[in-house]
Amino acid sequence: MIGWSGVYHILATPFRDDGALDTEGLPRLVECALATGINGFTILGIAGEAHRLTDEERRRVVETVVKEVRGRVPVAVGVSASGTHLATAFARMAREHGADALMVAPPTGLKNLDAVADYLPIVLQDEPVTTQVNMPAPFIAQVCADLPAIQAVKLEEPPTLPKITRLRALFGSRVAIFGGLGGVYFFEELSRGADGAMTGFPYPEALRAIREHFVAGRRDEARALFYRWLPLIRYESQPGATPGTAVGIRKEILRRRGWIASALVRPPAPALDAGAHAELAEILAAVGA
Amino acid sequence: MIGWSGVYHILATPFRDDGALDTEGLPRLVECALATGINGFTILGIAGEAHRLTDEERRRVVETVVKEVRGRVPVAVGVSASGTHLATAFARMAREHGADALMVAPPTGLKNLDAVADYLPIVLQDEPVTTQVNMPAPFIAQVCADLPAIQAVKLEEPPTLPKITRLRALFGSRVAIFGGLGGVYFFEELSRGADGAMTGFPYPEALRAIREHFVAGRRDEARALFYRWLPLIRYESQPGATPGTAVGIRKEILRRRGWIASALVRPPAPALDAGAHAELAEILAAVGA
Amino acid sequence: MIGWSGVYHILATPFRDDGALDTEGLPRLVECALATGINGFTILGIAGEAHRLTDEERRRVVETVVKEVRGRVPVAVGVSASGTHLATAFARMAREHGADALMVAPPTGLKNLDAVADYLPIVLQDEPVTTQVNMPAPFIAQVCADLPAIQAVKLEEPPTLPKITRLRALFGSRVAIFGGLGGVYFFEELSRGADGAMTGFPYPEALRAIREHFVAGRRDEARALFYRWLPLIRYESQPGATPGTAVGIRKEILRRRGWIASALVRPPAPALDAGAHAELAEILAAVGA
Amino acid sequence: MIGWSGVYHILATPFRDDGALDTEGLPRLVECALATGINGFTILGIAGEAHRLTDEERRRVVETVVKEVRGRVPVAVGVSASGTHLATAFARMAREHGADALMVAPPTGLKNLDAVADYLPIVLQDEPVTTQVNMPAPFIAQVCADLPAIQAVKLEEPPTLPKITRLRALFGSRVAIFGGLGGVYFFEELSRGADGAMTGFPYPEALRAIREHFVAGRRDEARALFYRWLPLIRYESQPGATPGTAVGIRKEILRRRGWIASALVRPPAPALDAGAHAELAEILAAVGA
Repeated sequence: MIGWSGVYHILATPFRDDGALDTEGLPRLVECALATGINGFTILGIAGEAHRLTDEERRRVVETVVKEVRGRVPVAVGVSASGTHLATAFARMAREHGADALMVAPPTGLKNLDAVADYLPIVLQDEPVTTQVNMPAPFIAQVCADLPAIQAVKLEEPPTLPKITRLRALFGSRVAIFGGLGGVYFFEELSRGADGAMTGFPYPEALRAIREHFVAGRRDEARALFYRWLPLIRYESQPGATPGTAVGIRKEILRRRGWIASALVRPPAPALDAGAHAELAEILAAVGA
Repeated sequence: MIGWSGVYHILATPFRDDGALDTEGLPRLVECALATGINGFTILGIAGEAHRLTDEERRRVVETVVKEVRGRVPVAVGVSASGTHLATAFARMAREHGADALMVAPPTGLKNLDAVADYLPIVLQDEPVTTQVNMPAPFIAQVCADLPAIQAVKLEEPPTLPKITRLRALFGSRVAIFGGLGGVYFFEELSRGADGAMTGFPYPEALRAIREHFVAGRRDEARALFYRWLPLIRYESQPGATPGTAVGIRKEILRRRGWIASALVRPPAPALDAGAHAELAEILAAVGA
Repeated sequence: MIGWSGVYHILATPFRDDGALDTEGLPRLVECALATGINGFTILGIAGEAHRLTDEERRRVVETVVKEVRGRVPVAVGVSASGTHLATAFARMAREHGADALMVAPPTGLKNLDAVADYLPIVLQDEPVTTQVNMPAPFIAQVCADLPAIQAVKLEEPPTLPKITRLRALFGSRVAIFGGLGGVYFFEELSRGADGAMTGFPYPEALRAIREHFVAGRRDEARALFYRWLPLIRYESQPGATPGTAVGIRKEILRRRGWIASALVRPPAPALDAGAHAELAEILAAVGA
Repeated sequence: MIGWSGVYHILATPFRDDGALDTEGLPRLVECALATGINGFTILGIAGEAHRLTDEERRRVVETVVKEVRGRVPVAVGVSASGTHLATAFARMAREHGADALMVAPPTGLKNLDAVADYLPIVLQDEPVTTQVNMPAPFIAQVCADLPAIQAVKLEEPPTLPKITRLRALFGSRVAIFGGLGGVYFFEELSRGADGAMTGFPYPEALRAIREHFVAGRRDEARALFYRWLPLIRYESQPGATPGTAVGIRKEILRRRGWIASALVRPPAPALDAGAHAELAEILAAVGA
């Protein structure tokens, strides 16, 4: 049984400066993230640039990550695709390599969900920006009722807060709820009853510590710590030419931390300008990162 | 000559609980905002629910606000419309009632800008979510070069920060630059060379004080103050079913401050749930508002 | 009781060459359309450029058309708006001037429909391009069940054909069904059970004749006549920069017929190029218009 | 040198009833299309359901088609992808298997075009529905000037007709122009100076015959033949849940012709209802297909 709570870290996919997949760098990235005490990994999401990988590169990422993790935390693999057959092929591959769960967003209709439900437990992703599919709370609850393989939902349609309240009223604790959106509403999401966050925020230890305070009833400490990190959380998750801008900032932070060797985002993607580097340095210093 | 700098407060449009325009409440709202030391007003923007007003209601808002302001600060009037004739009619009305400037976003092509440029100075609004028109920096600079009536731009296509840098390189200080987006990147926007912010953030005195520190060279104080207010700035500007959610939170804060009598947003708009009221109370207390 | 069948002609709004509303030209346009034997008018739709009229211009259009029609056929007035109050204000104005029905599309949620249902019978418009609201057949049927004021639906989400079949199965003949989309699928829509078409196709007598053949059981004649007109129907309704291109072609045909004095479309709108004029002349000659 | 004119047939990708790629059926489909006298193939386009194929399935399609064609006509391979690396990988694969050209649409910016230009001649696809990238005529002309590898453009942003005229004025005959959109404006596109059509219309011999009349100066015969086929062209290309509806109709026609064994479209895709089968039979009979 998968423990669907806490901080599921969305893994960046590291590339070399020439754009090739940095398979050799993956184990270090995995270990660095594990060392912060995360509760799980989500790989091959949009922020993992999965839509810019060949099928073989996807396979190598899954194989390498699962092998490195060695069961210490669950690994959920993104399998969203524009068609059922493709999603199923990704799901089969993920299972063959030992993944623990699948993350999937509905492209049109729900056929993909049905199709992958035979393989592994599912995290249902509610992310209308990419999918252009809006799922009201009663609809999500119905889908979860129809498909027992769904064990968690990841909410990314703002505003997420009232949706958490409504979903909890609809399906109780049968399905876990994770916030996304880079953690910008993490404290309020916890207050609304979320079980955790799925985000690639590059200081997962901060989110973990916030949640530990919260779960232990130290609300003031949780809030104060969240507010302390908020300038970076906000800056790191800024919207825009999806996902180039945000992923570029994230990878630059990971590079500064020594978790990855190159901050390269696969093109087309905007490069960080000099101002962004200066802002990042200032914010990291100011929040005490 | 209009002083295009500082905090231009985007005025909410107050309604009574039955949804009627609260013309009687407008003077108080204007005086409350003026008392915080704002540098100008922008009225009839999207956050002013202009698209939900009849032409006659628009007229009453302009007439009442201009009369109450009595030239103490400039008043810019939003005239964006789906056609040139409508935008021109709004511009003519605004001028007849003594407005100082117009704010306009291009619907398709730029005909609207040409058409309203005969009336008053223009603030060009770069807001692709509503207009679905993307304007790269070189394009904006060209438009500003072609239309001398444009005296300021309001940037709301994220990420705004590199765009400020590029626009400054393109048109120097010929055109003023304002940030929008609820002030979420206000400190960085100032660092990039923005002249101020145009937002309806309901504590304009906070933005004013941040900018005063910044302009006086007290960068650390400016940043610290910005960070102190950030939890509220972030919460107040949360995206979603535009503009219902954000406007609803904003109006509830204005109501709590006693600036308006009713927080009603014209339907269709989601109501704030109990959780939102609790969150708001907690954040207001925590930031010391 | 309104006869919801046949050809409801969507009235173009005539302008003078300087862009002013051509109120004086409206009676002639109304009479020309009536002389073709249409069954009703729909005014102030998107193809009527309603979103580019001031409130006062809308009022003048309703007043003039209703006065000229003198009850010979029903007049439905478009009241779609971005908010409930505005839609209600339009509905009230339409009723005061003697309109017979309202056409409304839901902007977000369905509040507008509720709000206008107190005034007049409703034609529900299913037009996701402009509204960005998708309404599956079961949802439309439920809305019709909830709101007895809805007497007809106008379908414009392609493909319309299976939707007609599903709606008929869901609500029988309780609600009338009209096709739109310029009549491009008119023959098949009739075969699926549609009661008629709502379109501004500038030869409404052709649609009327096709339907008369169809209703009289002369299927081959109906189909042959539809095919004869199809080159023009197709050309006249070509998609693109909505609604500039299509409305421009339509108005140019109306001008050639002598129904309106100027083919001007309110800007911003693309002008017909020389090629378009030549194509139009060739097609009109070829179909025998 | 590739002959960029005439009818380039966009090949459907045949599946078995269980959804597996029907590699065995591909040669027959290729031969049936070749027998109609087409001038080239375009494979792995959107209508070829390429976005629903695994990388290995794409490879098998290219390999099988090129092998079967044996140089009798050019084969262009669609390589559009959400990132440069993926597009490049597809381009490399296409070249390795003997393809003659690439078709590519720009995802964001133009990096993909640069990246694939090293491999083979390019057909630039202007298809904003899928790419959400709008390319005005001067922009397309500039891109073609910058990238000599571009030998043809395929226009699918309606209205295509004025764009053909403007592009011809901008780049003369340096770049070939093809219409798409299922051939709905084929006759007018030829009149505007298009070199041919790229579409998967399942009676390519009709398009070929229309163009032969046109090129030989038999304008009346070309137009009459185009009008004869228009009811089917229109029905076959009807828009909607892209690309399910249109591809489903097309594959059903191919199945009736005996070109493919199964009309299955990879899910999620709407099935043709009984009404669609009846309409298809009626139209095919009426146009004399």
